[in-house]
Amino acid sequence: MSPTITAFALSPDRGRGLARDMRVRWALEEVGQPYNVRLLSFREMKEPAHRTLHPFGQIPTYEDGDLALFETGAIVFHIADRHAGLLPDDATARARAMTWMFAALNTVEPPILAREAAILTERDKSWYQERLPILDDRVHARLRDLSGWLGDADWLDGGFSAGDLMMVEVLIRLKSSDMLDAYPNLSAYVARAEARPAFKRAFDAQLAVFTAASSG
Amino acid sequence: MSPTITAFALSPDRGRGLARDMRVRWALEEVGQPYNVRLLSFREMKEPAHRTLHPFGQIPTYEDGDLALFETGAIVFHIADRHAGLLPDDATARARAMTWMFAALNTVEPPILAREAAILTERDKSWYQERLPILDDRVHARLRDLSGWLGDADWLDGGFSAGDLMMVEVLIRLKSSDMLDAYPNLSAYVARAEARPAFKRAFDAQLAVFTAASSG
Repeated sequence: MSPTITAFALSPDRGRGLARDMRVRWALEEVGQPYNVRLLSFREMKEPAHRTLHPFGQIPTYEDGDLALFETGAIVFHIADRHAGLLPDDATARARAMTWMFAALNTVEPPILAREAAILTERDKSWYQERLPILDDRVHARLRDLSGWLGDADWLDGGFSAGDLMMVEVLIRLKSSDMLDAYPNLSAYVARAEARPAFKRAFDAQLAVFTAASSG
Repeated sequence: MSPTITAFALSPDRGRGLARDMRVRWALEEVGQPYNVRLLSFREMKEPAHRTLHPFGQIPTYEDGDLALFETGAIVFHIADRHAGLLPDDATARARAMTWMFAALNTVEPPILAREAAILTERDKSWYQERLPILDDRVHARLRDLSGWLGDADWLDGGFSAGDLMMVEVLIRLKSSDMLDAYPNLSAYVARAEARPAFKRAFDAQLAVFTAASSG
């Protein structure tokens, strides 16, 4: 039996690959693991049946036999831990890849999401024009450090890993802005990841869900 | 050789245990692993020597022989992965504990830190009084779901794990507010964790650093 993940029946990003099932799809494609998808409406996500799988009422979840997981970090780690291709065998290199997974989710993503939240919910507020540059600065502080670390390497720490997968997924959220333009090596890093066949298969699969739903 | 962690020479929280070395100290105490501490000034944290260990110029870091890590999630996972006491042996239970580690750092912590950032940096802004309730609501949404999940259990998923350690460390940040009061089971959960001998040893050790530095 293949694992089953959940995803939006109608993704609010209109299939641009920003919904978090994309991370899990990409990881599964990288390791060559087939999977099933169960689509959920916004209403279904908040109902008790789904909350037994995901206490915070979100997508994605991951079910495989007796195991039920939520949180993309934990799901991607679980996939990477059980299949070759996303975490190095060497213990030191493996711990380093884990460091980058957590750095993506706990250090780089929060200021990016804080900026997104302001754009979505504070655009008509009197303070928006004063506050946005402060939020931009917090994102740039992370990008500057990350760009300095990456230098002219292809990936963050040796070969492509789950740490890169997660970092790229976080940076991709900035593509609707011009913020990455100031960091040519980060732009190239994102493009390098997007060119991976596994990324493309995952992207096409999530886009197909949106296309089918919106043309129905 | 014992591992070496870094911590603030003079913690901005005045030894209340909110600096992130506390997470690592607690994990090391839970597994009974001795450790060394190297103290850093704010200036030293941002210098190139430290940035080779921590690209974002923060504490804590973790060095053990050839291995150098940053990100508390990755450090606590590394400790839990190598020593008994913080992750169950059973593969399913272990994956669940990882889910709660990521949930603490990527789902529950961000709205708590966003609220803290506003209190620290926007208190004198014209919009503060209008914006703070919105930030409070985002925290309460997470606490409500977490409280509903925990119910009357002692820990989030079976026995105490690295997932609980990380979740408690995130919730403790709310103790300077009254936000946890609305969730008696979460308040009891935090108190249960703080009563653990390993927590107390870690707390006392970080407080001793501040006390010594500030009386010097």
